[in-house]
Amino acid sequence: MSSKLSPLAPKQISDLAPIAGVRLTSMAAGIRYKDRTDLAAILFDRPAQVAGVFTKSKCPSAPVDWCRKSLAGGTARCLIVNSGNANAFTGRRGADSVRMTAEAAKSVLGCRRREVFVASTGVIGEPLDASKFGDHLQALEKKAGESAWLDAARAIMTTDTYPKLATANFKSGAKTYRINGIAKGAGMLAPDMATMLSFVVTDFPASSKLLQKLLVRAVAPTFNSITIDSDTSTSDTLLLFALPRDDKLIANLADKRVRPFAKALGEVLHDLAMMVVRDGEGATKHVEIRVKGAKSDKSAKKVALSVANSPLVKTAIAGEDANWGRIVMAIGKAGEPADRDRISIWFGGIRVARRGYRDPDYDEAAATAQMQKEFVPITIDLGVGAGSATVWTCDLTHEYIAINGDYRS
Amino acid sequence: MSSKLSPLAPKQISDLAPIAGVRLTSMAAGIRYKDRTDLAAILFDRPAQVAGVFTKSKCPSAPVDWCRKSLAGGTARCLIVNSGNANAFTGRRGADSVRMTAEAAKSVLGCRRREVFVASTGVIGEPLDASKFGDHLQALEKKAGESAWLDAARAIMTTDTYPKLATANFKSGAKTYRINGIAKGAGMLAPDMATMLSFVVTDFPASSKLLQKLLVRAVAPTFNSITIDSDTSTSDTLLLFALPRDDKLIANLADKRVRPFAKALGEVLHDLAMMVVRDGEGATKHVEIRVKGAKSDKSAKKVALSVANSPLVKTAIAGEDANWGRIVMAIGKAGEPADRDRISIWFGGIRVARRGYRDPDYDEAAATAQMQKEFVPITIDLGVGAGSATVWTCDLTHEYIAINGDYRS
Repeated sequence: MSSKLSPLAPKQISDLAPIAGVRLTSMAAGIRYKDRTDLAAILFDRPAQVAGVFTKSKCPSAPVDWCRKSLAGGTARCLIVNSGNANAFTGRRGADSVRMTAEAAKSVLGCRRREVFVASTGVIGEPLDASKFGDHLQALEKKAGESAWLDAARAIMTTDTYPKLATANFKSGAKTYRINGIAKGAGMLAPDMATMLSFVVTDFPASSKLLQKLLVRAVAPTFNSITIDSDTSTSDTLLLFALPRDDKLIANLADKRVRPFAKALGEVLHDLAMMVVRDGEGATKHVEIRVKGAKSDKSAKKVALSVANSPLVKTAIAGEDANWGRIVMAIGKAGEPADRDRISIWFGGIRVARRGYRDPDYDEAAATAQMQKEFVPITIDLGVGAGSATVWTCDLTHEYIAINGDYRS
Repeated sequence: MSSKLSPLAPKQISDLAPIAGVRLTSMAAGIRYKDRTDLAAILFDRPAQVAGVFTKSKCPSAPVDWCRKSLAGGTARCLIVNSGNANAFTGRRGADSVRMTAEAAKSVLGCRRREVFVASTGVIGEPLDASKFGDHLQALEKKAGESAWLDAARAIMTTDTYPKLATANFKSGAKTYRINGIAKGAGMLAPDMATMLSFVVTDFPASSKLLQKLLVRAVAPTFNSITIDSDTSTSDTLLLFALPRDDKLIANLADKRVRPFAKALGEVLHDLAMMVVRDGEGATKHVEIRVKGAKSDKSAKKVALSVANSPLVKTAIAGEDANWGRIVMAIGKAGEPADRDRISIWFGGIRVARRGYRDPDYDEAAATAQMQKEFVPITIDLGVGAGSATVWTCDLTHEYIAINGDYRS
């Protein structure tokens, strides 16, 4: 594991303002790591509305199985997250660990088992011993406070080099509401979604069904449009909770109070997703791939992901080499409709290729200057339609190899 | 570019025995590299039967376009290959370069333009100046000889660290025949096919149509079952030529003389494909992924490729870490039918996971010992059907980043 801070880390990381009735806490439970917190809880003083989206892996972790089922109930009283062990590919014992955790939380909090949400991240295939989680939960419940978002964000980190928090305030009707979110990356991270855990809480009075609809929409251009290394985790979990103050729940998507919430939710998820990309394992560049002129939006996204996941494109970006030939390669391998002789490519504002040929005004020095920046925006016009998509990724560096060639031991 | 010899390189590399009527040669044309050969030719003293398979990229190079069309004629008099410049994404000028090359060969050899086959490998997107190819060809024609297979194999290398040659002799009917092949890798190499050029010549009397049928069959379990980095080139070209001595051409697949040829062809392509894998950019491990128990062979191949292309699996192998959790991840992300709780995984002869759980007899030391070997065979039983497939790859190392982070400059 690396302890080097990402060069793309935010200059300053602050705790988030509290949301009434939402208490957080963390502790060092010694699950795998030493001298750091690895168990976090978010507690809701009353039942919160809940929605979630999960990994599309065919080998999902036991906590993912559990949360998927629990969503049917529509309410949550707590979320328990551990890092260091993913509780994935752990057979019946994995499911037993989750049930034991929920059982423990049930007695501590006096809620239903299915109101207990669980997430795990870390090594796959090792049994997770949850026998002490009951004791841990009692300790956590006692010290939980409304101003511990940063603590919780720290406790869920694995190879992340910084905690990830985002917030938004918005007006809806006559009131002001808040959305707070935390997330962790940092590798095994590709749509859909990432070795990615993210937990977002609002005091906006949305029903669980409305939350679910809005979450599915908001996740597509954010968490489902980022990739670090094309590897999709067994454990990806994004949960959205609403703990309204005294308002009546809103269930109707067409309610005009919904739009400001949807917009703010999109912003928070975008901010968190960008933080995840900028902390991608070994990242030194934040890369944006915009594809336009595709046959359809779906086709554009496939091409954008093909470019974003190409090791040769990513190593060229790491080397600050304006090697647009590799982008042509990655467009070609996507297998999507494209006309080689109509393709144009830009690095930032600099057009390097025009209609299937090196731009007549191509200036290597200008292109290289763009590559030397921290943010590398790449635009591709396929020239065959009106579909478009944007995805984000990072470069592929020696540090990625260092982190992952010796992660487990 | 790296000059370090792959640790997986063969201990000894020898030239191949000649095939009568097939002359080879190479020269330093200064296309991009200095102090090395970069232009090779294979000349046939009379029209050879020819077949070919090519990249599936939607952005194929100009030489690929040319060869695809030329195959219709069914015969070849020469092959001209340059390294250093792929002549890809070079618009009309790219096609002009190829035509100019064919025109030059036509006058030198007195053949039809469409009997001239052309392949290029190297940087994408830079115009290839073919104006001197006429002079070069005259020089090449003069010095060509039947014992220069090794020279030709050297001249077509890019980031390859050793030349790749394979040969087989076989009996068919009352006669003995030979197949000689050369190939180059070494990155941007995924099915179907690879930044891979390979040229195979036999004296077996197969017609072009029969060659094409046999080639398509033989390429599936060989070149189309290897991947270095999941990136597919614009230029992949595998051409198969037959220059029989005095026999009548065989056109019928059912002819009993065909089977020994098909077998030997498969062996030569397998040998060349394994050499390409063992010279994958930065490779220190030769990895075999066998998937069985899949819903279908096609499904098995998708799962095998998902594992073979996973950066996290490949970095774990580089680190000699028996991290089978990442294999579970890569199975899960393939999206193919799989039952998490029936999956078993072996490293070599050591079963590390059994029916969705760590093997009860799991022995970390034994698993690690297997990982420390040069050849790492991984077997996966999905437990849902009878489909199977095998693919080969290499690990992902610092050297891959070093080679590709600074390849063009």
